[in-house]
Amino acid sequence: MDTLLATREPLTPAAFEEALRGQVHRYHHIHPFHLAMHEGRLSRPQVQHWVANRYYYQQIVPKKDAAILSNCPDPAIRRVWIERLHTQDGTADGQGGLESWLHLAEAVGLAREEVLDERHVVPGVRFAADAYLTFTRTQPWTLGVAASLTELFAPDLMRERLAAFAQHYAWVDATGLAYFQARIHEAPEESAFALKVVQQYAVTRQQQDRALGALRFKCDVLWSLLDAIEHTAQALR
Amino acid sequence: MDTLLATREPLTPAAFEEALRGQVHRYHHIHPFHLAMHEGRLSRPQVQHWVANRYYYQQIVPKKDAAILSNCPDPAIRRVWIERLHTQDGTADGQGGLESWLHLAEAVGLAREEVLDERHVVPGVRFAADAYLTFTRTQPWTLGVAASLTELFAPDLMRERLAAFAQHYAWVDATGLAYFQARIHEAPEESAFALKVVQQYAVTRQQQDRALGALRFKCDVLWSLLDAIEHTAQALR
Repeated sequence: MDTLLATREPLTPAAFEEALRGQVHRYHHIHPFHLAMHEGRLSRPQVQHWVANRYYYQQIVPKKDAAILSNCPDPAIRRVWIERLHTQDGTADGQGGLESWLHLAEAVGLAREEVLDERHVVPGVRFAADAYLTFTRTQPWTLGVAASLTELFAPDLMRERLAAFAQHYAWVDATGLAYFQARIHEAPEESAFALKVVQQYAVTRQQQDRALGALRFKCDVLWSLLDAIEHTAQALR
Repeated sequence: MDTLLATREPLTPAAFEEALRGQVHRYHHIHPFHLAMHEGRLSRPQVQHWVANRYYYQQIVPKKDAAILSNCPDPAIRRVWIERLHTQDGTADGQGGLESWLHLAEAVGLAREEVLDERHVVPGVRFAADAYLTFTRTQPWTLGVAASLTELFAPDLMRERLAAFAQHYAWVDATGLAYFQARIHEAPEESAFALKVVQQYAVTRQQQDRALGALRFKCDVLWSLLDAIEHTAQALR
């Protein structure tokens, strides 16, 4: 039996899921900037810098989810995926994930305007977040779904962050941390559905490899975003 | 005063609305194929041909609305626009506008499969509908909204169509006409919001001209679609 060919057999659903979850070593929970954040080594201006820059990514999220909807031909899947837009945008003024992040911004001492007008956003953050949006617009929708699977790794990071803020950044009002609290519950439900879709559509080994590649790409986006934040935060002691 | 420059003054909101509504002479309610339909001159296979081909356009609609969402930076506008996706896709299996159109297909004697697999869709219909989707993906979202304003003209066409089907195509079960009935009520609400958005964002004369151009483009899409249907329906006596 040709081993080269043999390695191209599709992974079993369990092995494929394991391979996807195995990408956690590329996830940004171990980025030096996050380590510094969670060990309490960030200054107040550095926390603000992170919050303002990360908002640029946050406001991309509903647009990338709409791009996935726009490329997805199945109404039954769209009906589930559309809930992500409601989660981010809310159903009324003052609700939703974007608004929660703006509350966080206020809690760390930023004005809404200086977040919304993007004055603090550095080019590397913009390029990384924009690359994600472009990916979801131009690649098959199933790869956009696969890229979303970083959510598999999010709840642990959110729990760690909440503990770190309570311990090291007590000057941030706890009500400002609602976004992280919400994601602990939202992310598992969203990623469970996304995983099901990816397993349903990625059936050949080539398709599974592409899905893994999409998830790696997304890890690169998140990592690169923090690289740009870390680099520009050094001047903000 | 330079008359050339003078003509480039922005239109008043009322004059702009009048100019938009004035594009009705380009709307497809007066296309020869619609005239033939409403005068009862279509054969059963021709009605089926229209229903099957028009479904290709219908299934583009939620994708183009998601593209507008993906390009729109304002959560407050997205919160309203997202309702269009719910209208087309429904909130459960067997609901929504796409499903209503499939009921119509069954009422005129088509199987769901032969509509969903697009076997009857002619190239001209595909190209016109795809052009609309590409427009909403690549042009500013405000022009996608302007293009949707053909809905200003839809209710009259829907009423005329319902009457024509009752009179000339009594072989089509009336329950199959629910889509047209629903649009009489949905279209005015949707177009009122779209008109408000267009008036808010198209403030210079150049922007107003572009909005008018987007609406003309959309009229061309609908017209071209019927041209392709009419041309290929001639063999179906």
